[in-house]
Amino acid sequence: MNLRETALKFHKDNEGKIALKCKVPVKSKEDLTLAYTPGVAEPCLEINKNPECIYDYTSKGNWVAVVTNGTAVLGLGNIGAGAGLPVMEGKSVLFKTFAGVDAFPICLESKDINEIVAAVKLMEPTFGGINLEDIKAPECFEIESKLKKVCNIPVFHDDQHGTAVVSSACLINALKIVNKKFEDLKIVVNGAGAAGTAITKLLIKMGTKNVILCDTKGAIYKKRPIGMNKFKDEMAEITNPNLQKGSLADVLKGADVFLGVSAANCVTEEMVKSMNKDSIIMAMANPNPEILPDLAIKAGAKVVCTGRSDFPNQVNNVLAFPGIFRGALDVRASEINDEMKIAAAYAIAELISEEELKPDYIIPNAFDLRIAPKVASYVAKAAIDTGVARKKDVTPEMVEKHTKTLLGI
Amino acid sequence: MNLRETALKFHKDNEGKIALKCKVPVKSKEDLTLAYTPGVAEPCLEINKNPECIYDYTSKGNWVAVVTNGTAVLGLGNIGAGAGLPVMEGKSVLFKTFAGVDAFPICLESKDINEIVAAVKLMEPTFGGINLEDIKAPECFEIESKLKKVCNIPVFHDDQHGTAVVSSACLINALKIVNKKFEDLKIVVNGAGAAGTAITKLLIKMGTKNVILCDTKGAIYKKRPIGMNKFKDEMAEITNPNLQKGSLADVLKGADVFLGVSAANCVTEEMVKSMNKDSIIMAMANPNPEILPDLAIKAGAKVVCTGRSDFPNQVNNVLAFPGIFRGALDVRASEINDEMKIAAAYAIAELISEEELKPDYIIPNAFDLRIAPKVASYVAKAAIDTGVARKKDVTPEMVEKHTKTLLGI
Repeated sequence: MNLRETALKFHKDNEGKIALKCKVPVKSKEDLTLAYTPGVAEPCLEINKNPECIYDYTSKGNWVAVVTNGTAVLGLGNIGAGAGLPVMEGKSVLFKTFAGVDAFPICLESKDINEIVAAVKLMEPTFGGINLEDIKAPECFEIESKLKKVCNIPVFHDDQHGTAVVSSACLINALKIVNKKFEDLKIVVNGAGAAGTAITKLLIKMGTKNVILCDTKGAIYKKRPIGMNKFKDEMAEITNPNLQKGSLADVLKGADVFLGVSAANCVTEEMVKSMNKDSIIMAMANPNPEILPDLAIKAGAKVVCTGRSDFPNQVNNVLAFPGIFRGALDVRASEINDEMKIAAAYAIAELISEEELKPDYIIPNAFDLRIAPKVASYVAKAAIDTGVARKKDVTPEMVEKHTKTLLGI
Repeated sequence: MNLRETALKFHKDNEGKIALKCKVPVKSKEDLTLAYTPGVAEPCLEINKNPECIYDYTSKGNWVAVVTNGTAVLGLGNIGAGAGLPVMEGKSVLFKTFAGVDAFPICLESKDINEIVAAVKLMEPTFGGINLEDIKAPECFEIESKLKKVCNIPVFHDDQHGTAVVSSACLINALKIVNKKFEDLKIVVNGAGAAGTAITKLLIKMGTKNVILCDTKGAIYKKRPIGMNKFKDEMAEITNPNLQKGSLADVLKGADVFLGVSAANCVTEEMVKSMNKDSIIMAMANPNPEILPDLAIKAGAKVVCTGRSDFPNQVNNVLAFPGIFRGALDVRASEINDEMKIAAAYAIAELISEEELKPDYIIPNAFDLRIAPKVASYVAKAAIDTGVARKKDVTPEMVEKHTKTLLGI
């Protein structure tokens, strides 16, 4: 069987990928008395008296909603909320497998920003966190920012921030190889959608002074006369300090890093050759990268990453989101802020020792069980340090240990 | 420890009652390729081409949303959506334990009918059915009826219909003992909320000609000058054909059945004495019944049911809702109609053989494993017979077998 047939059979034979697990048995009248009436009234009354108790007496604190409206599913585009469900179930499985987070898919049949925000806000009591997924740009920006304002639990759009965290982790290690610093870099990010925007913002937070964001019309700069919107205007304000204009090829000249979340084969060997010495190419378009690794290397790149598992240095969100949510949930963080994302990036990067680090091994394998415990504890520490941890009696060490316990290690 | 302390400890020690179970392993790159990218794109594309395929490739067909807004939780009243979560998690556990249904709590922070309807409709892609729970009357009627109109999956308010099904099952067997028929009965239902209204409607569907529904103002009849609303007007149209007026005590005279979903101790021995010979008393107020069983028997009642597990004949919804949803999901019913509810009532009643049947044993114990398979198969048959089963290749026998398999019997 080919992949298509195998994948369909796999989903059909299992009737999907997720089910409910009861943490308590109900085998006798006594069990029923505790799990349901009349005993269940007691935690209800406690929560009614003190809403924060919901974390003590229910599973809320470990459940994350994986919310989509199916408008930007994988590379498939707007296939609809229902057709996105296999991906959301998959995401739930990854949350559970990689960090013991209980995640539930919520596929919302709507393209209306306010409808989506209202529905998610309404269901907040059930969840400890909200993971937005596969919602197209620019709607995803507004949905996330509105939800962050109205929710008391973390809201995190993985296509933006998960990608930004893992790319940053790669870049941290790639810079060690080429012996450059964030402050000194010229970085060109190609693709001004969800991922490109978030990556750019995080790179700036991490110290980069000169990032140029490109879309299909070339470099974005202040007051560019065509193809702008309010989100690109905002990006123009914080990027491209030298107001460079022109095509991707034009601005790549003299750049240290190319970071693509764009389209297959849009970078040529010539373009790589025009970059600075020891260039870093992060060609993350899926399934076909902006330039193939061997061509990039031949043209002078020192380190190449892609989104694919069959090349070295795969930029894979699964390295980040499970541990990020694990850390955020364990300290009951009210949000996932930039400091927590940056902490996650360093946690991932630090898993590769100085001795191990080489151009084709800058980022750990997804199945490296050390990842989630380390990411979770770093994220927890950043949450505590920035004052967003609402549970005060948890330390980063406890979070690390808890994560290991959940993973059975 | 008393019940309160035991129940709180039970909930706290387990950190709530529900978790995610992955039906597929993700232990290798190959697993990841199937459960997530790139393999997962295949079922997405299939569902995009043919939306009905979502039942083949995802878990949708076995997930039920347990939806509340926390306005009528148990007997605790309007304690809020979050404080209702322990009950909803308990309900999820019962769904899974008693019929292998995966159920997920959705606690919606809203008292606005349209907001609730909009949010639930939006999340329809994820679920195979909607179980409304602990939403106060009369809002519950409108929420259910609006959702039934807009959803293509079954919508079932358990406080209404689950209670109606189990009470009907009791009555079917109680009538065998007293040798009376639905057609000949005078039934007084006390309590015109969610349960009382639904019970009354189902009794009429089952052949009862003379049901009188009472609220705190006494018998409801057409054009009653006080305390009416559009829902009571509707009930007045279909009940009380002799336009009896007066208090509960007044209309109970000469009645065959008292059916209470009202308040503790509102029925006296005198009132029971005024009823017909061989009266049936269903005193389902919780935790304290309308009249205690021994008093009712002393006053001449032949059969007494309550809502309590420490008296004989407990009217417990758990006998009905797991099997009803099991049957509805297995045939992909587009709704749960009256015929399916009546079938469920007969399935439950028939589990007590003629030899076993006696005044203090008219209804099976909740832990009788025969219940869900029988209810599910009867419900499936009724769905098929009434044309609401969308999956055409499933027989009631297959549903029974499937339910048994899920229960490990």
